[in-house]
Amino acid sequence: MTANASTPSPAAADDTLALDRQAEELGPGGDLAPEVDQEAYRRRMQRRREVQQQRVGERNLEKGLVLVFTGEGKGKTTAALGLVLRTLGHGGKVAVVQFIKGGWQPGEARALERFGDDLHWHALGEGFTWETQDRERDRQLVQSAWERSCAYLADGERKLVVLDEINVALKLGYLDPEQVLEGLGLRPALTHVALTGRGAPAALLERADLVTEMKVVRHPFREQGVKAQAGIEY
Amino acid sequence: MTANASTPSPAAADDTLALDRQAEELGPGGDLAPEVDQEAYRRRMQRRREVQQQRVGERNLEKGLVLVFTGEGKGKTTAALGLVLRTLGHGGKVAVVQFIKGGWQPGEARALERFGDDLHWHALGEGFTWETQDRERDRQLVQSAWERSCAYLADGERKLVVLDEINVALKLGYLDPEQVLEGLGLRPALTHVALTGRGAPAALLERADLVTEMKVVRHPFREQGVKAQAGIEY
Repeated sequence: MTANASTPSPAAADDTLALDRQAEELGPGGDLAPEVDQEAYRRRMQRRREVQQQRVGERNLEKGLVLVFTGEGKGKTTAALGLVLRTLGHGGKVAVVQFIKGGWQPGEARALERFGDDLHWHALGEGFTWETQDRERDRQLVQSAWERSCAYLADGERKLVVLDEINVALKLGYLDPEQVLEGLGLRPALTHVALTGRGAPAALLERADLVTEMKVVRHPFREQGVKAQAGIEY
Repeated sequence: MTANASTPSPAAADDTLALDRQAEELGPGGDLAPEVDQEAYRRRMQRRREVQQQRVGERNLEKGLVLVFTGEGKGKTTAALGLVLRTLGHGGKVAVVQFIKGGWQPGEARALERFGDDLHWHALGEGFTWETQDRERDRQLVQSAWERSCAYLADGERKLVVLDEINVALKLGYLDPEQVLEGLGLRPALTHVALTGRGAPAALLERADLVTEMKVVRHPFREQGVKAQAGIEY
C-alpha cells in the first residue's frame, strides 16, 4: 500500500495501538522475565511473537518519510549518514546537500566516493557565522543550496535526500520554514528526506513523520578538553 | 597530547568553561544578531572567531573515547554507522559486533562490503527474545559475542569498535556491566568504542566520555501504521 496521506484511518490507528498495549502487557524477555522454567518462558515468548507478527502486519503503509534529527546532542548528521549507507546498500540513489559545513573535506565524503554516481554530495555552506562574517553572503549561499535541494526533492530518481544542517540555516533566518514545507511537497510519494541540525522550527516538527531529539548527557569537549578527532567529529 | 586519564586538570577545565561562556556572551550570528550594519556584525563575528580558535586550542587532549547512544528514539545504530563511515574515510580500520540483530542482511552491511578487510562485521545475535524463545541460548550467544568484542577492543589495529545493541543485552541480563567495564579497559589509548541500544546501565553512562540519548518526539510506526522500509529501518 502506498499513500501520500500523512494519517491512516482512525480505526487502523486504534488497532495498532491495541497491539502495542498487548505486546507491552506480555512483558519483557531475558532475565527481566518472571518465569523460572524454560517451557513457560517459551510459551509466553511464542505468544509475544504472534502479537509482533500482527503488529508488523497492521503496519502496511509505505510512504516517503520526513525525518528530523535535532537537539543539542551528538549524532544528528551521523544518524543521517547511516541512512545514506543503508539506502545505498539497497541500491537506492541518494543526494546530500550540506548547508553549513563544507570548508573541510569530511571523512565520510571521502569514504563515499566509491559509490560513484549513486551518491550526489554538495557541500554548499561555507562554515559557521563567525567564519563567514557576512550575513548577506551566507543568505545567498543558503538560498542557492535550497534551490539545489528542491531539484533533488522533485527528482524521482533519488530515494533519499539529506538536507544537512538545514535546521541551523532556518534558525539563523537564512531560509524560511514556509519555503521548506513547500519543498517537501515537491517529493514523489516514496522519496524520503532527512533534515538535520539543532533548533528545528515548530512548523517542521509538526510536518515530520519522525523526530528524534539528540540530548546531550555527557560531552567530552565540554567536560574534558578533548579535541575534535578524525573519525568521530569529521 | 595523548592520555588515558578520563579527566583533565581542574584548571584546564575551568579555562575551557570560561571560553565557552565568552562564546555564548558574544551571541549568535545570522538574523539572530542584534546589529543592523554589516561592519558592526563583522567585528563581533571576528571576535567570536578568535574565541572559537582559543576554544579549539584549549582542547588538545587526544584519547580513545567511549561513546554511548541510548534512549528510545531512532538513530542510535545509524549514528554509530556514521562513525564507521567517517573512520573508514580516514583510512582507519573498524570492527562491528552486533549483539541482537543479525537474522536479516542489513543494507548497511551490503554497502560496506566494498571496504573489504578494513571493516570486520559480525552479526552474532539471533534476534529478539520472542524469536529465540530460549534464554540460555541467548546468553551463550551474547557471551560469545562479548568474547569476540574483547579481542577487538584489545587489538590496536582497530581504530573504532562498535558494539551494536549491547545495551539491550545488558538490560536483559545476558551480560554483566562489570564485564563491559573491564573490556573497555583493554583498549589501547587511542581506540574509540561506540555502544548502542536502549537501556544503557548507569555504570556504563558513568564511564562514558559521550552519552547521547535519542528521544522520540514523533514516530511514524506508532502513529501512522507505516511499515519498516528498506534504507530507513534496515
